[in-house]
Amino acid sequence: MSLITLTTDFGTKDHFVGAVKGAIYTELADARIVDITHEISPFNITETAYILKNSYKSFPKGTIHIIGVDSELSKDNKHIAMSLDDHFFVCPDNGLISMIASEINPTKIVEINIHDRIESSFPVLDVFVKVACFIARGGNLTVIGREIYDFKKLVEIQPKVNQAQNQIIGGVLYIDNYGNLITNISKKMFNDIGKGRGFKINASRYSFTKIFTKYNEITGDSAHDSYQYDGSKLAIFNSAGFLEIAIYRSNLKTVGGASTLLGLEYRDPIIIDFFTETKPEYSSLS
Amino acid sequence: MSLITLTTDFGTKDHFVGAVKGAIYTELADARIVDITHEISPFNITETAYILKNSYKSFPKGTIHIIGVDSELSKDNKHIAMSLDDHFFVCPDNGLISMIASEINPTKIVEINIHDRIESSFPVLDVFVKVACFIARGGNLTVIGREIYDFKKLVEIQPKVNQAQNQIIGGVLYIDNYGNLITNISKKMFNDIGKGRGFKINASRYSFTKIFTKYNEITGDSAHDSYQYDGSKLAIFNSAGFLEIAIYRSNLKTVGGASTLLGLEYRDPIIIDFFTETKPEYSSLS
Amino acid sequence: MSLITLTTDFGTKDHFVGAVKGAIYTELADARIVDITHEISPFNITETAYILKNSYKSFPKGTIHIIGVDSELSKDNKHIAMSLDDHFFVCPDNGLISMIASEINPTKIVEINIHDRIESSFPVLDVFVKVACFIARGGNLTVIGREIYDFKKLVEIQPKVNQAQNQIIGGVLYIDNYGNLITNISKKMFNDIGKGRGFKINASRYSFTKIFTKYNEITGDSAHDSYQYDGSKLAIFNSAGFLEIAIYRSNLKTVGGASTLLGLEYRDPIIIDFFTETKPEYSSLS
Repeated sequence: MSLITLTTDFGTKDHFVGAVKGAIYTELADARIVDITHEISPFNITETAYILKNSYKSFPKGTIHIIGVDSELSKDNKHIAMSLDDHFFVCPDNGLISMIASEINPTKIVEINIHDRIESSFPVLDVFVKVACFIARGGNLTVIGREIYDFKKLVEIQPKVNQAQNQIIGGVLYIDNYGNLITNISKKMFNDIGKGRGFKINASRYSFTKIFTKYNEITGDSAHDSYQYDGSKLAIFNSAGFLEIAIYRSNLKTVGGASTLLGLEYRDPIIIDFFTETKPEYSSLS
Repeated sequence: MSLITLTTDFGTKDHFVGAVKGAIYTELADARIVDITHEISPFNITETAYILKNSYKSFPKGTIHIIGVDSELSKDNKHIAMSLDDHFFVCPDNGLISMIASEINPTKIVEINIHDRIESSFPVLDVFVKVACFIARGGNLTVIGREIYDFKKLVEIQPKVNQAQNQIIGGVLYIDNYGNLITNISKKMFNDIGKGRGFKINASRYSFTKIFTKYNEITGDSAHDSYQYDGSKLAIFNSAGFLEIAIYRSNLKTVGGASTLLGLEYRDPIIIDFFTETKPEYSSLS
Repeated sequence: MSLITLTTDFGTKDHFVGAVKGAIYTELADARIVDITHEISPFNITETAYILKNSYKSFPKGTIHIIGVDSELSKDNKHIAMSLDDHFFVCPDNGLISMIASEINPTKIVEINIHDRIESSFPVLDVFVKVACFIARGGNLTVIGREIYDFKKLVEIQPKVNQAQNQIIGGVLYIDNYGNLITNISKKMFNDIGKGRGFKINASRYSFTKIFTKYNEITGDSAHDSYQYDGSKLAIFNSAGFLEIAIYRSNLKTVGGASTLLGLEYRDPIIIDFFTETKPEYSSLS
């Protein structure tokens, strides 16, 4: 039994996802297919990279991940299959594996070369499904592609650090279902650069001098009055290990989320200033 | 083989749902996972209670239902596991089991106490999945929690009846995909209080003196001209057994639904007046 | 093991889809259920017909397709079960099988007549699931219905050809997740009527004299500068074999798609004029 996940920008209204699932079941009657998401913003590689990084590890070893975002074949956009961390990925080489492959070295990457046999304007259906099912049946990557040793990198997902090492210039990487702003600044980078110093996070015209580890830490011990904190702005390291600017119990459709309340969008800057005097980690400045 | 359902406010864009499914498959390779919904309005307990009540019974006995809505652990928001009606529920104790547990007594409720072993800002992934898989393997609830005998109630889902027993003061509990307004007034309550008397339902500035049992009863025998009824307002007992104010063949995105056409929202009042003289049940007044 | 697909306008927020899946698993513990879509615009038969046509063929022979769009039973809206192309369809007879059944003759159609045993305002749950599970267990269609030899046709999905055979008057059949406008003009019809002549496609105030077979053909060999083509309008025969007016790398939520940029909606006209002199197929006129 094979586990195959799907991550696409197809949306869930059109026939695309259904057609892909049908094709997989036709080849592998006992496959188990899991939707990671089909709501990637059209052609958005950064979102894809973020979602992939935060979902694939939960799956069992051997899972095959099909990713269909901006996947039309061209000279500049090859199709690849990759093994990494005992998972398999079938996707375009457009940067979407950047976040995964920058942390863990791929075991093998091949440029898929079965296209001479397939003419297609729907490569996920016609190429990726075939490759995924081939892998599921135990096929070797080198049979369906030519080994390559590099992949396209996304530059925008890397925050910058100034010369004096007292400032991280990051940005908004992703806005989640609650409107929370996820930055490209990881907890590891924060600790490596910050070294326990006091800090101020600047997001739009707001600033934060404390980073929480749970959303409801903001309510302190006053659990029974916790609703008074609804709508409060807070900084948190989220479950994916990234700095997030959140609104406590936000709702994008009613009161708004961090994205609307702070007026920040994808790629907008989030800047952390560290202070010279050493302060206890995560404590408040004022 | 275990059947596990998921009901959350995670949305379907983020990595949350994918991560949870991956974690379940990692523990239980042959699990069957069913999405009930991930589109609960963020933190909306009433919606969750309504959806849960109307979906769980369709599933086979032994199904395990994970519910992740406002589930961050706090002094005021415990995590519980419950057996009821031969189903299992793993969720926060924030009122979302109110509608289920007010109809059928829970067989057992435990307050989950495995948190000392788990530090988490994503409890559905880190706690609920573990508990659900433990139950799926036949584990006893009392191993993962301490038995409790009460649960949090939602007050807003109960309509009120006046002293004279001739008025039900209910409200909008839920607005469905078609924009129909589902009230908190059940058919059972309507019959118990109404006792066959004539009635008038007041919803915004509209009133209804007939309750249908099928939407297209409104077209009578003129089936071939049924399109002339498109957009008509009607009251109906829906398939879940609740009074619903509906628009015949509505479409929220184009002509609008009952919610937009009547200008009514979640929690707005729906009031039924009963008349003293006895009238045949469901008949029209005028 | 049975494969059952679901195509509905239920949306994914309400309890409807969950309830239907639960009912299937209760009858068939080892069923495999695949969502084709639940995002059909409410009561939109044309959308349903288009999606169904483009998804069902990917599935293995023997798959059972439940379609729940405008499915309330009435004199004018019978419930049917059909076998066609070794697939089974359980749905209302409201035209949604038009596109499938106009290409391939149904093997058998029955009008479902088990309703005397079932009183329901939720026929997908109460009738269609029962019929689908009956078929899955190998049951014969004639046991649950009376054979019929005709089905309701949708007229609006057929483009017209003028007397002189030099003009196709088509229209927008469907708008996809990327905002692309899918017309009701098939590649086959284009070739049959056009016979290799030069042509001009008129869509709103724009015209097209070339039809691509892949989206990124528009970038020609300049793959490395392909982003300069983002937002370009193009005509293409899509993977479903229909003429589509698309925007290269469009995004409905940001820059817009063909639907918003051209100001065209469902049912708006798309007209192709063919020229008398013979020109090489698909070539540009100017």
